[in-house]
Amino acid sequence: MKKHFKKLVGPLVSIFFLLNMTSTGYAETTVSAEVGFIFNTLLFLICGFLVMFMAAGFAMLEAGSVTSKSVSVICAKNIGLFSIAGIMFWMVGYNLAYGIPEGGYIGSFTPWSDSSAVDTGYSDGSDWYFQMVFCATTVSIVSGTLAERIKLWPFFLFAAILSGIIYPIVMGWQWGGGWLATAGFSDFAGSTLVHSTGGAAALAGAIVLGPRLGRFTKSGSPAPLKPFAASSIPLITIGIFILWLGWFGFNGGSQLAMGTADDAIAVSTIFLNTFLAGAGGVMAAALVTRLGFGKTDVIQMLNGCIGGLVAITAEPLMPSPHAAILIGGVGGVIVVFGTKLLFSMKIDDVVGAVPAHLFAGIWGTLAVPITNPDTVFSTQLLGVASINVFVFVVAYIVWTIMKATIGIRLSKEGETKGTDVTETGVIAYAIRD
Amino acid sequence: MKKHFKKLVGPLVSIFFLLNMTSTGYAETTVSAEVGFIFNTLLFLICGFLVMFMAAGFAMLEAGSVTSKSVSVICAKNIGLFSIAGIMFWMVGYNLAYGIPEGGYIGSFTPWSDSSAVDTGYSDGSDWYFQMVFCATTVSIVSGTLAERIKLWPFFLFAAILSGIIYPIVMGWQWGGGWLATAGFSDFAGSTLVHSTGGAAALAGAIVLGPRLGRFTKSGSPAPLKPFAASSIPLITIGIFILWLGWFGFNGGSQLAMGTADDAIAVSTIFLNTFLAGAGGVMAAALVTRLGFGKTDVIQMLNGCIGGLVAITAEPLMPSPHAAILIGGVGGVIVVFGTKLLFSMKIDDVVGAVPAHLFAGIWGTLAVPITNPDTVFSTQLLGVASINVFVFVVAYIVWTIMKATIGIRLSKEGETKGTDVTETGVIAYAIRD
Amino acid sequence: MKKHFKKLVGPLVSIFFLLNMTSTGYAETTVSAEVGFIFNTLLFLICGFLVMFMAAGFAMLEAGSVTSKSVSVICAKNIGLFSIAGIMFWMVGYNLAYGIPEGGYIGSFTPWSDSSAVDTGYSDGSDWYFQMVFCATTVSIVSGTLAERIKLWPFFLFAAILSGIIYPIVMGWQWGGGWLATAGFSDFAGSTLVHSTGGAAALAGAIVLGPRLGRFTKSGSPAPLKPFAASSIPLITIGIFILWLGWFGFNGGSQLAMGTADDAIAVSTIFLNTFLAGAGGVMAAALVTRLGFGKTDVIQMLNGCIGGLVAITAEPLMPSPHAAILIGGVGGVIVVFGTKLLFSMKIDDVVGAVPAHLFAGIWGTLAVPITNPDTVFSTQLLGVASINVFVFVVAYIVWTIMKATIGIRLSKEGETKGTDVTETGVIAYAIRD
Repeated sequence: MKKHFKKLVGPLVSIFFLLNMTSTGYAETTVSAEVGFIFNTLLFLICGFLVMFMAAGFAMLEAGSVTSKSVSVICAKNIGLFSIAGIMFWMVGYNLAYGIPEGGYIGSFTPWSDSSAVDTGYSDGSDWYFQMVFCATTVSIVSGTLAERIKLWPFFLFAAILSGIIYPIVMGWQWGGGWLATAGFSDFAGSTLVHSTGGAAALAGAIVLGPRLGRFTKSGSPAPLKPFAASSIPLITIGIFILWLGWFGFNGGSQLAMGTADDAIAVSTIFLNTFLAGAGGVMAAALVTRLGFGKTDVIQMLNGCIGGLVAITAEPLMPSPHAAILIGGVGGVIVVFGTKLLFSMKIDDVVGAVPAHLFAGIWGTLAVPITNPDTVFSTQLLGVASINVFVFVVAYIVWTIMKATIGIRLSKEGETKGTDVTETGVIAYAIRD
Repeated sequence: MKKHFKKLVGPLVSIFFLLNMTSTGYAETTVSAEVGFIFNTLLFLICGFLVMFMAAGFAMLEAGSVTSKSVSVICAKNIGLFSIAGIMFWMVGYNLAYGIPEGGYIGSFTPWSDSSAVDTGYSDGSDWYFQMVFCATTVSIVSGTLAERIKLWPFFLFAAILSGIIYPIVMGWQWGGGWLATAGFSDFAGSTLVHSTGGAAALAGAIVLGPRLGRFTKSGSPAPLKPFAASSIPLITIGIFILWLGWFGFNGGSQLAMGTADDAIAVSTIFLNTFLAGAGGVMAAALVTRLGFGKTDVIQMLNGCIGGLVAITAEPLMPSPHAAILIGGVGGVIVVFGTKLLFSMKIDDVVGAVPAHLFAGIWGTLAVPITNPDTVFSTQLLGVASINVFVFVVAYIVWTIMKATIGIRLSKEGETKGTDVTETGVIAYAIRD
Repeated sequence: MKKHFKKLVGPLVSIFFLLNMTSTGYAETTVSAEVGFIFNTLLFLICGFLVMFMAAGFAMLEAGSVTSKSVSVICAKNIGLFSIAGIMFWMVGYNLAYGIPEGGYIGSFTPWSDSSAVDTGYSDGSDWYFQMVFCATTVSIVSGTLAERIKLWPFFLFAAILSGIIYPIVMGWQWGGGWLATAGFSDFAGSTLVHSTGGAAALAGAIVLGPRLGRFTKSGSPAPLKPFAASSIPLITIGIFILWLGWFGFNGGSQLAMGTADDAIAVSTIFLNTFLAGAGGVMAAALVTRLGFGKTDVIQMLNGCIGGLVAITAEPLMPSPHAAILIGGVGGVIVVFGTKLLFSMKIDDVVGAVPAHLFAGIWGTLAVPITNPDTVFSTQLLGVASINVFVFVVAYIVWTIMKATIGIRLSKEGETKGTDVTETGVIAYAIRD
């Protein structure tokens, strides 16, 4: 089986040579093939439902981050994009990624069909489910950045293109055994493949779409200006906790196997490092905002968590706990300063997805060689550059074509009224005393 | 063991003959009985906690859907009914369902007690837990429909009757091996047994109770009129995502076994179809409301997801991915038009539970023969009709008796002030600038 | 292996002699060591992520319970304390607890490192993850009580001390095989070790810190006075449901093994009793407030759930279903009257954590001998007294030193403006019509 071969081979080799001190001592596995099949499938299903739930996390993070006149539509976008991404990934995405020839560039345009068999070692359907939720995550990243001024259905169209074509192509390059895998690139659970892809597509959209009306007329303080204040901090908070929970599935499931004691140890190590990197991101953002700017910025702490988690995603298995905290901490710092950078460039990223997913994803992927001796910096740079440039350019072209044809931006009047009134006619909060 | 025999035998036979191409190739299982016991128990526990969490989903869906003067009481109802349902299902419900004679009509009025043994193949306690959360789900469906005008404790009394007696009786007819099972009815995870039962009991209550004051004095536009606007769209949204998450447990766990590779494949297929049906429901409701009525109705998209999920629940294993999307999509359309139908009949279903659970449940159950050749339409119709008529009539009688004796409706003054002030004295949102 | 020896031996012996009727009939286990290793690790990981998610539950419970001018900071506290607790528990806590000599008082000040091996029976990393989230839970309990007037960073400092030193010491006394384990104390999943520890530390803080400005100037009605009204009842509600969900992991995972059918049965029994005790707590609080004070208090129902869950945590395996409902019900009653007691003493516990965690924890731990014949009341009392006195005194000293040096309380002006404006500069709800 070609599938996942890079992801599987790399870590297994690493475990043998580097984590030998934490190996179980089982000379060879005593788990029967069928029991292993069930364990592997169970890992995909459990980690899959955790990642699926990240869709709720993104929905809450974004609903809390937009102003209260765009909350209903961001909810519609999140449930809609998740549905669209799943259908597209079944119709075309999965085989576009995994049907790729070894070392190749693109797979086949055919729907996924079940081909479970003894020698695959896991249920094919469970793998589809697990990979599908990764695809949906990529699209979730985009919706927040473009909130409050993009039209609903053009956004859905872009969601279909990203989930059905753009993401599967870059996924195939690496996880399908395409040219980047052959080149030796390593991205364990998708700092670049998933998170930077989402972030780069969002950045392209933000540039083509332009900022919200009035966002940059005042001199640019990075603090949430009153007219653009986040509608609900507790919704952002529960969103982040859900994302953190889901990330255990995201990274843990990317071990792709739970049928041996060594795999079980690896998944545990991944859980541990994923937790510590998120914690590092939170506290780094807390310290930087408190010491650098006077107040402890809760939004940056929450987004710093994402930055830390994205950073560890490229290599959650090899780092020591110390290293995981540091890698995550740098991710948190990147979020704080990346947010300022975008603001200074007058690029309007409503939820801070570009710093958290694109910038921290670049950092995490480039940092892999620090802890994984099987990788080299130049190849990591090649992977980061090729994927980000490809996604950004393609997304930019798609956004531009859509802008020139069907239009992607609400009318001034519609934006001023708010997307909720204009597009869904349902106000988000109806609170009476 | 008689238990679940229908549920187990049907799918297993089907897998052999129809899904042979996705079988693992293991001629016979190589999993030891004890390992299988642990896997099966683990499936019940994992899927059980996912379904348990659906109680939170219903609570948020309903809290977001009612007006802001009835949110605290709907929270009290949801945590209370879940507690009551669990206690009743232990005290009487489980054995009322599973103590039924083969082909019979009713089981015994005795509390559940643990009888785990080697040959059951799973822990009895884990099965109780899994079945209990289904019972609680049935009651959760009722609370939203009747919100904003029903008295709290009479509702709790009905919750006890529904969870302790009405639901267990119909559950026994089918899953306990009673007369419907003998007749050949098929309802894999409960489109009719759980969802239509909840919906029919809710409909009976809505008719006996009458609509909220002022709900139908204006000419009936189906859009949320300002005075009845949903209190929080993001709370509805997180509720729906939680329900979608829980549904993987609801349908996946209904395979009732995870101790062979074929079972693991079946659970994976169920996850996949459950996802696609929900996605179909979302997008069908989005398209219908956008094309039919001008604006993309976020509430209908969210409720359409439930419609799609309810529809696939009667048969989540046999459909192809194409079929799952279509079955779910029709469920979503049914939600949109079912909501209009109820509105035109001046039946006040506050959260749209009747269209989503009763109507979509009927559709899903009648659609089983389309993909499952072991079933026939006439028997499906028999099951749908007998369960829905039985539940509706019994619930109608119970509601009527309660109305005539203890009273079920708040005073006009109490309703005008709002249930929160009247019944719990705790306002739901205390937000100050 | 010394680790957990008390927790493991007690229940196993009990199962043999007392639950024999529910045993599987397997004379000896037929599960291979490696398969058992995977099952045990899986239990830690699954239950660990459930407990991890409790951090979100506490965050929502607390965000909903404080007034709307302190919501952003309580969110910052919750994500921050979770991060700090995890890092401290890795740096020093784990080995301070588990590095203890048999029958001893304190372990070693060294960071955790992975020592997975065949004979441990589970991945060391998965155990660290599982134990870490317990440590974080202990700290979560403290943050709500002290809300709305404590400074952010001094709170973080206390969180580090509690998670790195105080909690690990008492944890070692019992779960590390220290002097309390030797004495025969029993606390299955931590009614005292986790919940009372958190509650006692919170109580000490509330006394040293003093009540919120104006909280007790009016004659003391226990109902939420308008100026101190909880900001959002649905956020409290979702918090409680998340905590209830997490508690299945909290108690179920404390069986510490899933590699035999008997362990699988035990975990199922724990799930069942954990559910029923929470249900008992909810309904007891509902009945007491309705019958005793006229209105059904939704906040007490929700907090009563916690009281019931805390009460069953000391012994979730041995009670019959009847006993579990009663133990939980008493926990719920304790919450109602404990809240009144604190109010009458003018101790300001913003979220009611002291009644729910400290008082109900004492009850649950003392009640263990009712259902577990291997325990005696005097030893339970010894454990309860020694841990609570130790934690309260040490915490009191730490809070007092901090008060005298760095200061722990906001200025009057800062408190009047609200913690959100003063400390993070981000208002929690920005809702416009």
